[in-house]
Amino acid sequence: MSPVPTFDDRIRGADDAFKLTVENAFDLRARSDVMPTSVAPACSSDMFKSPNCYHKPRAKCFNHRLSTEAKRRQPSTLKAAAMFLKDPDLISLCGGLPSPEYFPFENLQLQVPSREALSKRHVNMGKSMENMDSVLRAGKSDIREGKSVYDLEIALNYGQATGSAQLMRFVTEHTEIIHDPPYSDWQCCLTAGSTYAWDTTLRILCEKGDFIITEEYTFASAIETATPLGLRVLGVEMDDYGLVPEALDDSLNNWNYQTRGARKPFLLYLIPTGQNPTGATMPLARREAIYKVAQKHDLFIVEDEPYYFLQMQAYCSRGTEPASEVSRGEFLASLVPSFLSLDSDGRVLRMESFSKVISPGARTGWIVASQQLVDRFARNFEVSSQHPSGISQLALFKLLDEYWGHAGYIDWLINLRIEYSRRRDVMIHAFEKFLPKEVARWKVPAAGMFCWIEIEWRKHPGMALKGDHDSIEEEIFLSAVQNQVLLSRGSWFKANSAQQENRMFFRATFAAASPEKMVEAIRRFSDVLRVQFHISL
Amino acid sequence: MSPVPTFDDRIRGADDAFKLTVENAFDLRARSDVMPTSVAPACSSDMFKSPNCYHKPRAKCFNHRLSTEAKRRQPSTLKAAAMFLKDPDLISLCGGLPSPEYFPFENLQLQVPSREALSKRHVNMGKSMENMDSVLRAGKSDIREGKSVYDLEIALNYGQATGSAQLMRFVTEHTEIIHDPPYSDWQCCLTAGSTYAWDTTLRILCEKGDFIITEEYTFASAIETATPLGLRVLGVEMDDYGLVPEALDDSLNNWNYQTRGARKPFLLYLIPTGQNPTGATMPLARREAIYKVAQKHDLFIVEDEPYYFLQMQAYCSRGTEPASEVSRGEFLASLVPSFLSLDSDGRVLRMESFSKVISPGARTGWIVASQQLVDRFARNFEVSSQHPSGISQLALFKLLDEYWGHAGYIDWLINLRIEYSRRRDVMIHAFEKFLPKEVARWKVPAAGMFCWIEIEWRKHPGMALKGDHDSIEEEIFLSAVQNQVLLSRGSWFKANSAQQENRMFFRATFAAASPEKMVEAIRRFSDVLRVQFHISL
Repeated sequence: MSPVPTFDDRIRGADDAFKLTVENAFDLRARSDVMPTSVAPACSSDMFKSPNCYHKPRAKCFNHRLSTEAKRRQPSTLKAAAMFLKDPDLISLCGGLPSPEYFPFENLQLQVPSREALSKRHVNMGKSMENMDSVLRAGKSDIREGKSVYDLEIALNYGQATGSAQLMRFVTEHTEIIHDPPYSDWQCCLTAGSTYAWDTTLRILCEKGDFIITEEYTFASAIETATPLGLRVLGVEMDDYGLVPEALDDSLNNWNYQTRGARKPFLLYLIPTGQNPTGATMPLARREAIYKVAQKHDLFIVEDEPYYFLQMQAYCSRGTEPASEVSRGEFLASLVPSFLSLDSDGRVLRMESFSKVISPGARTGWIVASQQLVDRFARNFEVSSQHPSGISQLALFKLLDEYWGHAGYIDWLINLRIEYSRRRDVMIHAFEKFLPKEVARWKVPAAGMFCWIEIEWRKHPGMALKGDHDSIEEEIFLSAVQNQVLLSRGSWFKANSAQQENRMFFRATFAAASPEKMVEAIRRFSDVLRVQFHISL
Repeated sequence: MSPVPTFDDRIRGADDAFKLTVENAFDLRARSDVMPTSVAPACSSDMFKSPNCYHKPRAKCFNHRLSTEAKRRQPSTLKAAAMFLKDPDLISLCGGLPSPEYFPFENLQLQVPSREALSKRHVNMGKSMENMDSVLRAGKSDIREGKSVYDLEIALNYGQATGSAQLMRFVTEHTEIIHDPPYSDWQCCLTAGSTYAWDTTLRILCEKGDFIITEEYTFASAIETATPLGLRVLGVEMDDYGLVPEALDDSLNNWNYQTRGARKPFLLYLIPTGQNPTGATMPLARREAIYKVAQKHDLFIVEDEPYYFLQMQAYCSRGTEPASEVSRGEFLASLVPSFLSLDSDGRVLRMESFSKVISPGARTGWIVASQQLVDRFARNFEVSSQHPSGISQLALFKLLDEYWGHAGYIDWLINLRIEYSRRRDVMIHAFEKFLPKEVARWKVPAAGMFCWIEIEWRKHPGMALKGDHDSIEEEIFLSAVQNQVLLSRGSWFKANSAQQENRMFFRATFAAASPEKMVEAIRRFSDVLRVQFHISL
């Protein structure tokens, strides 16, 4: 166990060797407790970071990348009045905040998997395990009654745009434990989901007419968020390990303002781990190479990382099982380092999500970036989403912070990884058994939720009838629907939809359907391919 | 009780005399049940409106008011793939939706005020009434187990941008019961709060450089949302009953493109009931007059109505109490009609909020407008907020739909109105007792959360020292803070901050502090005024 600095050490930032860990985070917290528990108190990650953070240099200034809209934004007048609320004897008739006595939820209870069950691994997830569950309770006035630092009175009222201090503390500690950004003035800000964080990013950094840079195939919604804002997309070549740094460098070296009709792009959107849709995961060296190109061309990187903790175990061929005796230390050491953890300049915005590891419906995530950027997000959120649902925040706090703690959360993630590894293996086994190798190829994904199946479409008989890429893709897709299996068409994810496509892909997720249904679905899709390509069944 | 049409009647829209009411809504629903209970199903208000709606003419087309951004927006590719999911035997490997077995919330329980307690009125709100409370339960797989039409499996997963069908049904029925819009193709769409709905409205309807129209004093955040987008604000004169229609007409008749450097404005933002900050409530005749001006100049009206159900009872002077024996019918009949209920053209967007009547922290509200407009919101939400928190939606559904029902919700609102009437009366009594009449004036607000105190600032001794409006307002404000009472400065709410101010106001809310603290706060503020204006204590 790492040494825990005293509160004075923390203030002075005296302990060079200190590293925040899953094991020591709560001890450190206990020695320097600062938890504002009033209604909508101001908060920031600086309340919760370890002293170690402040030994590092500050982030570079990215003012020159801010949009006109972002530069025009001032902090909210009414939210700013909160600064007067520090005097405990002051009576406020200022904010139109309802009195908590008029919130009709007196008590909230949540039944969740117990820490003990998680630490045993191999939990039979999803099977009703009432006897292994725990019940968490949040009362309306738990804070005033000394029972908790978060309650319904606070969660059901308005909050600050950064999100509640209570959940902010957990995500700040988690961020430091996992990524330990190499500059001092990083901040977290809760978001109403990464989809909204991305919309906001574009409004903070881009002007109409700009190009943004993405992987050649990328999350369709990310593109669909950008184009209505008058943005265009430069898709950069990928290989099995994601975006190719040399291709990125070339595109930017050869950027021509005249022919493009736009300034040189600087916003690089990446899904580095378990990429959607290709399933590619960038190894460390790839990330370092891309970061260097980003420094050379002064790019700003958005790393969208919903699948970061779905980095799976090694693929197991039929009849073998993924190892389930994985320690927290082994698990954490096995994770490929994030761009955030390499970000000496403060040129990375990391979008974090609970959607794939806890619940997408909670619509609660967070971002990590330099204070300068995070301030701009907070100003935007103040007059748009405000903050993620307080009920979601309270549920996550009760589960992650007050009950599981960092160690329990890591245990949960390890269990999840075993499950996803198993699901992926089931799908790959079905590929091996059913897909016609004559026309279908795939790689085993190391992370995420998706397999990316390449189809040798030029072998399709429709080619003889002058069929083109789109019509053949559509025919296969619709035949599959008719055969009662739905896959995503690769062209949906093409960053530059105007570009001619040489290759054809279908995306299949192993996240949603049961293992039995997955196998059946792949069997059906394989039948469709055989019929389509005139391959004997 | 009104007659309930049969399902066939509903389909044919045969019953001219039918009116949806608090009492018959659930009966009608039961006879024509259409509740999609799959993951993220498409839904719209058309599934839940009564046949009566379809007798009415369609809304006018407002295509000419859509922004370039809105016109560019296409429905999301991935969400559109949901259309293939109707076949129950189809297996989807398409959407990256996590399997519900990996959501760590197995069960949610909520303790809420019982229907019986509410129907008795005069409930001692906020006092712990455990013996009068009920406990609502949501399991993970209640739908599959036939226990409910909504559960954690669905609520914790992704949803459609319109919000869940389950809560959509309730708000659609509620909208028809209360407002019964006079055109046929109105729709609801859930929002992640009205603040975000307003940001989206501006992006859907405005171009950089445009003016929008608001009341002379208005919600500061509404302005702060607009200005970073490059929008400017035309504040229109108000009197005790809100915006003056003749002043609106004059401004628009005399609009000069050259001097203004902008096209004639067409987006009118109003808080018609319990206006923030002035507390003014527009009577019906005022609303009708404004609607006529809107028709003449082809305006689009946004009615932001968080305080609609905080329409209070008549002011009771000291020693008397507001009547508590109010029937649902009396309560509903007492509400001033909304702009939506007058909107024969479909030129109104109503922003609805649970923030002031249930909980702001839930970050869940809804909009009502013509299908054309609502479609544009849904396309925007798909790639931004997505939808309000599913946990919030489930909590609201359990409370409002499954337990209280429409009747119980109205009972809750009646109780709330009694409480707010009482609070307002406490504040006005304190005004009468403490405020120096020499320099302070007020009206008793008929709705909302705010009293608007006018100060005769020209009597301030600072005037002799060439003090201006701002410096005197600031001096009073800071003296009040020093005397431990916080009010909002009227100038924070000035729509056109560049305009010279003739009058000075402070806003005081009676929503937040306890009655005792409110009285003390007004005493402190009165002392400040006396000292500031050299009036003997």
